[in-house]
Amino acid sequence: MCVCVILCLGESGLGKSTLVNSLFLTNLYIDRCMPDVSEKIARTVSITKNTVDIVEDGVNLRLTVIDTPGFGDALNNHERYFKFYYVDQEMEKYRRNEIGLNRKNITDNRVHCCLYFISPHGHGLKPIDVNFMKALDQKVNIVPVLAKADSLTPKETHNMKSKILTEIDKFKIKIFQVPDSDPDNKDLFKQQTEEIKRSIPFAVIGSNAVAERNGRRVRARVYPWGIVETENPSHSDFVHLRNMLIRTHMQDLIHTTHYLLYENYRSGGGRTSRRRTANRVQGGDNGGRSQGRGVTYRPPPGRRILAPQEQHREGGTLGEGSGGGRRTESMADQSEGGAREETGGTWSMRCQVGPRPQP
Amino acid sequence: MCVCVILCLGESGLGKSTLVNSLFLTNLYIDRCMPDVSEKIARTVSITKNTVDIVEDGVNLRLTVIDTPGFGDALNNHERYFKFYYVDQEMEKYRRNEIGLNRKNITDNRVHCCLYFISPHGHGLKPIDVNFMKALDQKVNIVPVLAKADSLTPKETHNMKSKILTEIDKFKIKIFQVPDSDPDNKDLFKQQTEEIKRSIPFAVIGSNAVAERNGRRVRARVYPWGIVETENPSHSDFVHLRNMLIRTHMQDLIHTTHYLLYENYRSGGGRTSRRRTANRVQGGDNGGRSQGRGVTYRPPPGRRILAPQEQHREGGTLGEGSGGGRRTESMADQSEGGAREETGGTWSMRCQVGPRPQP
Repeated sequence: MCVCVILCLGESGLGKSTLVNSLFLTNLYIDRCMPDVSEKIARTVSITKNTVDIVEDGVNLRLTVIDTPGFGDALNNHERYFKFYYVDQEMEKYRRNEIGLNRKNITDNRVHCCLYFISPHGHGLKPIDVNFMKALDQKVNIVPVLAKADSLTPKETHNMKSKILTEIDKFKIKIFQVPDSDPDNKDLFKQQTEEIKRSIPFAVIGSNAVAERNGRRVRARVYPWGIVETENPSHSDFVHLRNMLIRTHMQDLIHTTHYLLYENYRSGGGRTSRRRTANRVQGGDNGGRSQGRGVTYRPPPGRRILAPQEQHREGGTLGEGSGGGRRTESMADQSEGGAREETGGTWSMRCQVGPRPQP
Repeated sequence: MCVCVILCLGESGLGKSTLVNSLFLTNLYIDRCMPDVSEKIARTVSITKNTVDIVEDGVNLRLTVIDTPGFGDALNNHERYFKFYYVDQEMEKYRRNEIGLNRKNITDNRVHCCLYFISPHGHGLKPIDVNFMKALDQKVNIVPVLAKADSLTPKETHNMKSKILTEIDKFKIKIFQVPDSDPDNKDLFKQQTEEIKRSIPFAVIGSNAVAERNGRRVRARVYPWGIVETENPSHSDFVHLRNMLIRTHMQDLIHTTHYLLYENYRSGGGRTSRRRTANRVQGGDNGGRSQGRGVTYRPPPGRRILAPQEQHREGGTLGEGSGGGRRTESMADQSEGGAREETGGTWSMRCQVGPRPQP
């Protein structure tokens, strides 16, 4: 089984949980209780961890989704910052297991991807976004996501994306770089890779509600002035994000984590003491940035990859087959068969031996 | 000329400036330059002040709109909090002028209404909202506004409004209470007053763009899935808010400020030292709340009021006549004639003698 851990980070109320439900056609937070404002004042960031098993093109995938309710709620967010050590802790656990005697069956809980949710209402990034992304970018693949994009017109979305990318560049925040496709990849894969690259930061819309559109049941948000379909590429980049996460680039996320970020951590570049973390928030040092990213990850040439699914109009394939976990059945009737193609090479999403890639 | 000062407060990016432009059919912030994230980190809350002269039913109104860019941007919002003393300063200026020798022509810059913008993306109020509203509610008429309501479905808007009202009640935040209409008021006025009461907190949508709808040019937001009209009551409470502010309840806002809030300030209930302000943020005291609100404002019976305008479908009247100021001409072609009715009484919006109500 292929295991991928996804961390959802971003201000409270940006639709993290709803997006996860939409991405994996599940209902992970059915028993969630929203804190009221007095609880928000009292508490710190909490971590909720949910696992969902899905079957994608006959391949079993186990996705662990970590949500962080309470993030950004505080009046003074410095405190919250210092208490967020989850990524480091999991790297350290893995390192200790790796140097132990019995390392055949290590459970890999390292975070392979951090979906960082950016508010559509700020004028670009907020200071809290810059601080968090800079603090994490040596330890995890950051995928920036422009949340609740249905509150932005197409022109506003374009401007917001440009501003976010400019600020990411200006502050030298390292985000996950989608590798170029190989010349021997299928045209559809190449096209999808290009679409994914163009979409970053992904402007996404999630929904827990289902509406009827042209005889199909789709996840949608129903407004008095129109219906927003989450999977309609002309409404949002949701499809591109989902393709990247569970179809075309999951292996890249896992391998970058192991070969680049984890190696960087082991060599000391990613391990950040509390004191150094504190300094970086104040803008006092660069957190050893220069050490970490000397090694560049390149996927091996001719690797074996799963080809992308057919586009939105042909219907999704999520939920097909025997996918178990906490996936709800309400959306299962949506799934139809999808195309499956493979190119030659050595790597595959059909990894049955556990999450740790063999060098 | 009737003078009313409106303060717009709320997190950056919630559409304060856009709403002001939509409310007063103007373009106050044409030369605005949005700060980037590095400037946001460095600076504190700034105050921008704009005055717009409008003519409403032949009555000249001067509205001063105070915007607070930078509010809530900081990582540590305690600091910003301490630096926001504008409301106190203006009360104090007025008090000093009033005890001076020449007090015939006092310029009234006291804040008569604070539109407090609440994010549609939080799950109810945020800690920063509770702190700010509690700090200001003895000094100014707070009108809570649920910003950017086009990102919420009708059900979400309803739930969000309920949650906000519950939390306002729980934290004993005093918001502006719309007075009941008198038995001798016209039915249309009574109906509008009821609609205004039901709409609080006002779920609003603003827009600087104009679209063509059914042969009329309207302020709207154009999405791929539909067009949101700011003045359509089935899309938002924008019309009710505008009616309250400049048609039906402007005099109530001015009189409550003078007879209740200012008297409270003079007697010491509203004057808050920096130390007491600091304590209240920490939840340490109630800021002398018990002193302030002993007096209850009641509008005099049988007062003269301006009757409400005809509803949305009959077209707005803003911009009619010789309204000057910084109002842009692009929207002037929208204005049509509106109904005007008056009931008997003694108070009127036709005050020509300056802003200070004569006791």
